[in-house]
Amino acid sequence: MSDPHFIVDPAAIEAQSFAIIDAEVGPHAYTARQWPIVRRVIHTSADFDFARTTWFSPEALDLGLAALRGGARILCDTHMVMAGVNKSRLAAFNCRLACHVADADIAADAKAQGVTRSLLAVRKGVAQGASIFVIGNAPTALFELLRLAAAGQVAPALVVGVPVGFVGAEESKEALVASGLPAIVCRGRKGGSTIGAAILNALMILAEEV
Amino acid sequence: MSDPHFIVDPAAIEAQSFAIIDAEVGPHAYTARQWPIVRRVIHTSADFDFARTTWFSPEALDLGLAALRGGARILCDTHMVMAGVNKSRLAAFNCRLACHVADADIAADAKAQGVTRSLLAVRKGVAQGASIFVIGNAPTALFELLRLAAAGQVAPALVVGVPVGFVGAEESKEALVASGLPAIVCRGRKGGSTIGAAILNALMILAEEV
Repeated sequence: MSDPHFIVDPAAIEAQSFAIIDAEVGPHAYTARQWPIVRRVIHTSADFDFARTTWFSPEALDLGLAALRGGARILCDTHMVMAGVNKSRLAAFNCRLACHVADADIAADAKAQGVTRSLLAVRKGVAQGASIFVIGNAPTALFELLRLAAAGQVAPALVVGVPVGFVGAEESKEALVASGLPAIVCRGRKGGSTIGAAILNALMILAEEV
Repeated sequence: MSDPHFIVDPAAIEAQSFAIIDAEVGPHAYTARQWPIVRRVIHTSADFDFARTTWFSPEALDLGLAALRGGARILCDTHMVMAGVNKSRLAAFNCRLACHVADADIAADAKAQGVTRSLLAVRKGVAQGASIFVIGNAPTALFELLRLAAAGQVAPALVVGVPVGFVGAEESKEALVASGLPAIVCRGRKGGSTIGAAILNALMILAEEV
């Protein structure tokens, strides 16, 4: 089993990876439901910074898992997040996952209004009833979601806020933390589409188990 | 311009991000053609480790850029890589991008043979004439590509080898470095689909410019 050439069972590879992560992280303050989410983020990135930066609002898991089990509409901000989400789990919960950033109407309106497509894509998702939001890339999408929530136009069951980058990403995530919305956040600059997809996949596994 | 709420022009956000990265990295040993690739990887991940770990074989850029300009077939190992690649640039070069990991025949054969779908998906891509390979996730895919190359069954123009993880990822990337194939590699545990897509996008921008 020690030669990676001969470990070809994905479940065995994952179990061995999780054991390595557990051993290297050692003691931590995450709960029994939070840790599988943080661990999957580290598994996806090989970056142990996420064992420090990943933050949960108190009611994030209760509300997020209930919404998943209820077949929530999920909006994500990039097609990379969509591509990384486990489709059979999504179908088992009867959840619908959408991303509007490449829609033809969004592109035209963004150009006309001089705003990002990400911002308008969030408005469209809210209009279509999304209650779980996975923002892996665009600070502008997260800022717009917070604005809509503050205006009472949406009451998210869960916001997975993990934009990555150098301009606005950290600020958008701190605004989410401060908002009081149910949220899972990777604070600081790091995050991204693979992180957002990993968190949603980990939530679906939790929703099956618990 | 300093309030991220009001920077809504994607090109302005990218330029400001690049300036931050340049300033924080400071002096480095990458060439004028290599640096835009490394910088885009850091832009995608907010992880400065990649300014140490990203490695280029001597002929990687010459061969890779020529293959892109010649309309190469490109194989990637995940749909997340595919989702992250700039489709208009791809079309401008007349390149074709494929990922076979979710093909029905691959799933059936993997189960029957007790091997990973990633491994069989590489064989299928080679059979269909791929010459650029972007491996962002699966060490088994990279090991199989190296085996096929050593056996004379494929002569890649470029291998972007950036699997992420704890079991086999680093070993697969060191095997690629040692192979002598034209390669861009993020050494160590880190990498992933967003990194693979960022490298391919950066290469296409270079291929347009140079």
